Amino acid sequence: MNRKLRMGMVGGGIGAFIGNVHRRAAALDGQIELVAGAFSSDPKKSKRSGKELFLDPSRVYGSYLEMAKAEAALPEDQRIDFVTIVTPNSTHFEIASAFLKAGFNVICDKPMTFDLAQAKKLRTLVRRIGKVFALTHNYTGYPMVKEAKEMVKKGKLGRILKIVTEYPQGYAVGDVDNKAVAKIASWRTDPSIAGASNCMGDIGTHAANLGSYITGLEMESLCAELTAFIPGRLLDDDGNVLIRYKGGAKGVLYASQISNGDENNLNIRIYGTKCSLEWHQESPDELIVKYSDKPRQIVRRGNAYNCRVAQENTRLPFGHPEGFIEAFANVYVNAAKAIRAEVSGKKMPKSLDFPTVDDGVKGMAFVETVVKSAKSKSKWTKMAKS
Amino acid sequence: MNRKLRMGMVGGGIGAFIGNVHRRAAALDGQIELVAGAFSSDPKKSKRSGKELFLDPSRVYGSYLEMAKAEAALPEDQRIDFVTIVTPNSTHFEIASAFLKAGFNVICDKPMTFDLAQAKKLRTLVRRIGKVFALTHNYTGYPMVKEAKEMVKKGKLGRILKIVTEYPQGYAVGDVDNKAVAKIASWRTDPSIAGASNCMGDIGTHAANLGSYITGLEMESLCAELTAFIPGRLLDDDGNVLIRYKGGAKGVLYASQISNGDENNLNIRIYGTKCSLEWHQESPDELIVKYSDKPRQIVRRGNAYNCRVAQENTRLPFGHPEGFIEAFANVYVNAAKAIRAEVSGKKMPKSLDFPTVDDGVKGMAFVETVVKSAKSKSKWTKMAKS
Amino acid sequence: MNRKLRMGMVGGGIGAFIGNVHRRAAALDGQIELVAGAFSSDPKKSKRSGKELFLDPSRVYGSYLEMAKAEAALPEDQRIDFVTIVTPNSTHFEIASAFLKAGFNVICDKPMTFDLAQAKKLRTLVRRIGKVFALTHNYTGYPMVKEAKEMVKKGKLGRILKIVTEYPQGYAVGDVDNKAVAKIASWRTDPSIAGASNCMGDIGTHAANLGSYITGLEMESLCAELTAFIPGRLLDDDGNVLIRYKGGAKGVLYASQISNGDENNLNIRIYGTKCSLEWHQESPDELIVKYSDKPRQIVRRGNAYNCRVAQENTRLPFGHPEGFIEAFANVYVNAAKAIRAEVSGKKMPKSLDFPTVDDGVKGMAFVETVVKSAKSKSKWTKMAKS
Amino acid sequence: MNRKLRMGMVGGGIGAFIGNVHRRAAALDGQIELVAGAFSSDPKKSKRSGKELFLDPSRVYGSYLEMAKAEAALPEDQRIDFVTIVTPNSTHFEIASAFLKAGFNVICDKPMTFDLAQAKKLRTLVRRIGKVFALTHNYTGYPMVKEAKEMVKKGKLGRILKIVTEYPQGYAVGDVDNKAVAKIASWRTDPSIAGASNCMGDIGTHAANLGSYITGLEMESLCAELTAFIPGRLLDDDGNVLIRYKGGAKGVLYASQISNGDENNLNIRIYGTKCSLEWHQESPDELIVKYSDKPRQIVRRGNAYNCRVAQENTRLPFGHPEGFIEAFANVYVNAAKAIRAEVSGKKMPKSLDFPTVDDGVKGMAFVETVVKSAKSKSKWTKMAKS
Repeated sequence: MNRKLRMGMVGGGIGAFIGNVHRRAAALDGQIELVAGAFSSDPKKSKRSGKELFLDPSRVYGSYLEMAKAEAALPEDQRIDFVTIVTPNSTHFEIASAFLKAGFNVICDKPMTFDLAQAKKLRTLVRRIGKVFALTHNYTGYPMVKEAKEMVKKGKLGRILKIVTEYPQGYAVGDVDNKAVAKIASWRTDPSIAGASNCMGDIGTHAANLGSYITGLEMESLCAELTAFIPGRLLDDDGNVLIRYKGGAKGVLYASQISNGDENNLNIRIYGTKCSLEWHQESPDELIVKYSDKPRQIVRRGNAYNCRVAQENTRLPFGHPEGFIEAFANVYVNAAKAIRAEVSGKKMPKSLDFPTVDDGVKGMAFVETVVKSAKSKSKWTKMAKS
Repeated sequence: MNRKLRMGMVGGGIGAFIGNVHRRAAALDGQIELVAGAFSSDPKKSKRSGKELFLDPSRVYGSYLEMAKAEAALPEDQRIDFVTIVTPNSTHFEIASAFLKAGFNVICDKPMTFDLAQAKKLRTLVRRIGKVFALTHNYTGYPMVKEAKEMVKKGKLGRILKIVTEYPQGYAVGDVDNKAVAKIASWRTDPSIAGASNCMGDIGTHAANLGSYITGLEMESLCAELTAFIPGRLLDDDGNVLIRYKGGAKGVLYASQISNGDENNLNIRIYGTKCSLEWHQESPDELIVKYSDKPRQIVRRGNAYNCRVAQENTRLPFGHPEGFIEAFANVYVNAAKAIRAEVSGKKMPKSLDFPTVDDGVKGMAFVETVVKSAKSKSKWTKMAKS
Repeated sequence: MNRKLRMGMVGGGIGAFIGNVHRRAAALDGQIELVAGAFSSDPKKSKRSGKELFLDPSRVYGSYLEMAKAEAALPEDQRIDFVTIVTPNSTHFEIASAFLKAGFNVICDKPMTFDLAQAKKLRTLVRRIGKVFALTHNYTGYPMVKEAKEMVKKGKLGRILKIVTEYPQGYAVGDVDNKAVAKIASWRTDPSIAGASNCMGDIGTHAANLGSYITGLEMESLCAELTAFIPGRLLDDDGNVLIRYKGGAKGVLYASQISNGDENNLNIRIYGTKCSLEWHQESPDELIVKYSDKPRQIVRRGNAYNCRVAQENTRLPFGHPEGFIEAFANVYVNAAKAIRAEVSGKKMPKSLDFPTVDDGVKGMAFVETVVKSAKSKSKWTKMAKS
Repeated sequence: MNRKLRMGMVGGGIGAFIGNVHRRAAALDGQIELVAGAFSSDPKKSKRSGKELFLDPSRVYGSYLEMAKAEAALPEDQRIDFVTIVTPNSTHFEIASAFLKAGFNVICDKPMTFDLAQAKKLRTLVRRIGKVFALTHNYTGYPMVKEAKEMVKKGKLGRILKIVTEYPQGYAVGDVDNKAVAKIASWRTDPSIAGASNCMGDIGTHAANLGSYITGLEMESLCAELTAFIPGRLLDDDGNVLIRYKGGAKGVLYASQISNGDENNLNIRIYGTKCSLEWHQESPDELIVKYSDKPRQIVRRGNAYNCRVAQENTRLPFGHPEGFIEAFANVYVNAAKAIRAEVSGKKMPKSLDFPTVDDGVKGMAFVETVVKSAKSKSKWTKMAKS
């Protein structure tokens, strides 16, 4: 299959932060070409975006339904190989379903769906149809996160005792004392679009997914407190969670949008009986390994001593910083391998390393349980079945 | 009063970590002279310690009771001005009481007593007798902690929304998988000596005190999980706590002794509506101030722009690192000012900045509430009255 | 001009580090499409690379001469808009000349030419022909480097007193004691290809360019020591330079390939009378501003308080790390604006921010002077005219 | 010898920075007692200082000569065991000579003397008289500096290729543009008191001593540039030096007092064929070890894996920061062991680890050579014989 993969996009009109990230991540490695899109529910805006992206106007659609239908009708050597969905949460399910049913592979932004019930339905559909479904929990794309996962897998940490995951952001703090702020600042804070949670749904799921990805541990029960510090908000802008993992490990996880001056401060510490790991998203090329009986180690990306999977997800030599887009692109690169296999009718490669519909279901179960616990007077709420 | 203060010590025989710290902290500024001690409950050991400390043998006692009595009987120009108590928790109350009653000022290690009831009794006694009582929550002695407190006081943070305090240590992790370990490694893990908690009592109280010192916020209720990861242990070696402060702020606090490779990793982040603070005990000369609309600031000790109280608690110019002993010595220096006033019958200086018996009561209330919550199935446990 | 720019490439066959970087940098923003190339002097290898890059085989050439001729002969709406040259130093001049003469814009890797004389000839040619010529001193593409430049320009540093630039790498240290190493490890260490210097030519020029870019200061004279620690090497693998700038500032600059364990450790500190700057390539999203009378500031990329030019060269919000490729892509983005203007016959935009042939001449003058000084017994060697 | 050592002090009246540091360093470990002093050349000031230090008035002298004579006349069980000299450079020689001749051991601040000739004379005297002479190059007292020395000694770095030492301070930068500044700000900038150099003499000697202490390498020749940025200054406030070490290693060393915002930013990097070391005085508890083929290591003070000598020079467990005073105190502790032996007529312990008169001679040779080189037009100036 000697050609680039053909990509379509739903949502993500010019100016949209996450749409641009997806496009750059897809373009970075020269393996994927954007050829079609329904970039806005407003057909004019969609057209305008398509033009700025240098697309053939006949492949720029006014709605995702039109797009799914039209693309499916194109000859095999022209139509898209997969669609990327970067619309608000509440629409993921219907859009993903439409494209899956029309025979397309899907890359979908997180959180996966509006609620857990939808997530399970989507899982059923994905399994039935057998197309590739990738969810962009992009932080798992960082090479040093993969190194961490590998260290856990190889038993280098011993038994895991504790996981601390923090994800404070501060961008919304200005609204706490801002009398003039509209009650609902964006769709993310509108329960009818974002779902049951804002902060925990948007970034708490990343934090939960990161711990799950690295350690494989499953949450047994949790105890959550959610707060809306911003007056008039219906959804949380801050949340703190205690966690009990199956097998006895304990956890602390918090996420926040009102943590003044914190930017995208996702951090994780994993404490094992043999050693501990520490990773900071804002310095992603380093993984800190701490021992109680020997010097601390700083594992740095791009070195020959990195594990194989970290090396495979690396583009640059040591000391040449890689960042957010590169990690995001790793989700695309790895999903693209599967999509390439699917499109060309080949067997799926054995080890594919990207978040799937199962991670999406887990994420929605996490959100649902957190929200339930936040309303409960009991200390521990059992994890919703996923 | 043109002389050094005369100090006595109970506990802290040669080789004891915390005894040495107290002695160095006391000696550092040339204001205090160690002249007497009951360094061990074993009279021979006490004598040996006294000799190594170059003390007059007649001032080295076999028991604290003997010491209190003998010192009180000495002429005023010879007897100690205050006693420092560095024995296990369970004995603080009786020793402190004995010396207070014998007319001596007291500097006492933390946690203050065996339990909250004792703490309150001690408070009553201190108030009645009117001597100086200082508690060595030494982390409040760091100049940059004082700078933080001052910033909060001046309203520079705006309203405080959230406090995150972490205190992971890893020194005990080796015992988690160590079959051979004695069930009770030290008095700290023996409930009959340490009290209701090990980890939370020993270092969790420091973490709680630090937040309280800087912000002045009072805990309303909390939700705690305590864990004994080390087999056979009767007391916690790890604990995680969610906190609701009076006035609406939220908190996360955790402490641990099994966090592999963490040394004395006490950190605090205080999030306000105007800006946030971050301080790391292992880099104590820096205070990080984070804003959402301007560059982050690194406030560094020893600069002319530091607040007055930070400057007064500083010995060295910028860039010449100060550490743990210097911070500890600040508790001594500040307590010594009060003791000097007490001894010379002068009026107490207006602003004295050292932890008192009230902080000790608060600390014991914290421990008692944490332990109660850890056993409870309810999410929130109201803070014990202090 | 509603289309992507068409790019050709000379050198940079699959597997080549810098070829891949250029391709990714060009692809990242969806503004440039690779359509042609002469990827190797071996036509077979060139074809193979072209195939892996999904190029039309008719646009994959066996030599750069063939390519220049064939592309020039294509209709205007098909032929490349510019060529990127990523071959060894000694060939830059002839290749760039050929494409310029054939009417193409050029993006060229550094160091620009084999020696200063060639560099000046190339400058004359570029000026005469009037095409765009960009040199990939990519470190100037980092937003925080641009922020630094802007601060200097606005006078925020006051008068500049001192510049310290360090660029230690360690990748070659294994050869110092390695008896088996071939005398010439790569073309970079072969004087007939690399020119008069290896380490100073390859990375010292980056260091010199960085200081020049930020401060605009010109070197008046310098005092250099070059060393070949690796046995059998004809060219330097380490160099230290003292610098006198016009106007009185002093400088220290060093570069090394045998600094064990350093990765790509380019750092610069610029000391002014009002404040100082510090930037570390391995943490590129931060610019440290130091004052003698107020707290240190950490300026972080992606914030609304960044200067306009930094913001224009930023793709992601704060806290989402950008790296080497993004900085490299900024050279491409900015050069592409000029190329777009040139191709569409429009007036050049006023402020174009990319390194030009003039920077290339300066770089070669720096190398020539360093080499001359290294051989001299006099302390100061006057800067070669550029 | 079951008593504290008795210390006298010349210079260092109350308020003097370095006098206070010496007193605290001496007091810290309870091994030394200040009993006498000539704290100022003004007898009244000396008396006042003595009073504030709670000294017996009969032991507070109006001049160092009076003090040397009077102390020597005291009975053996009362007179001082050693004197600490903390006066301006130009007076060190005469004062040290007087006390040595009167039979006292000496601890002297650096730089040791006014010039190299004096230094050599002092060395001759010290050798002849056979008393202990310690020079407070205090940065060698940091445990992680000792760890570094030990690693070099054990061959862990392989052959040393390069040393980079930087010591920028910024405290004097305000004077660069300050028209009102007195021409000579303090005795440090007066050539008749400070000697031939200000910045290089005051802090450059520390930098040179640090490299020498850790690596044992001797300078063969150097190439220096000294600058007085402050108008009217007769002595340097900034200096940059290239160094050739015996055996082939190369060096860069710079020191500055006009590096805006730098505090006491002494750093050293030592590059070996097997690994490299990096140590930062402002984070003294860490030693960074860098390899080209395995993860970077952070060696942290207070761990059981530290070398013996580092452990012996440590007071606190890991994670409890030690600082400048503790390092300074290590010079005192180690010198005190020798003084104790000398006083009690015992054999000198085998391994004594403190800077001696030989280090002082080396330091003065360094200053003399730097100043000579700075005036020379030749690139390399041979190191003065020491």
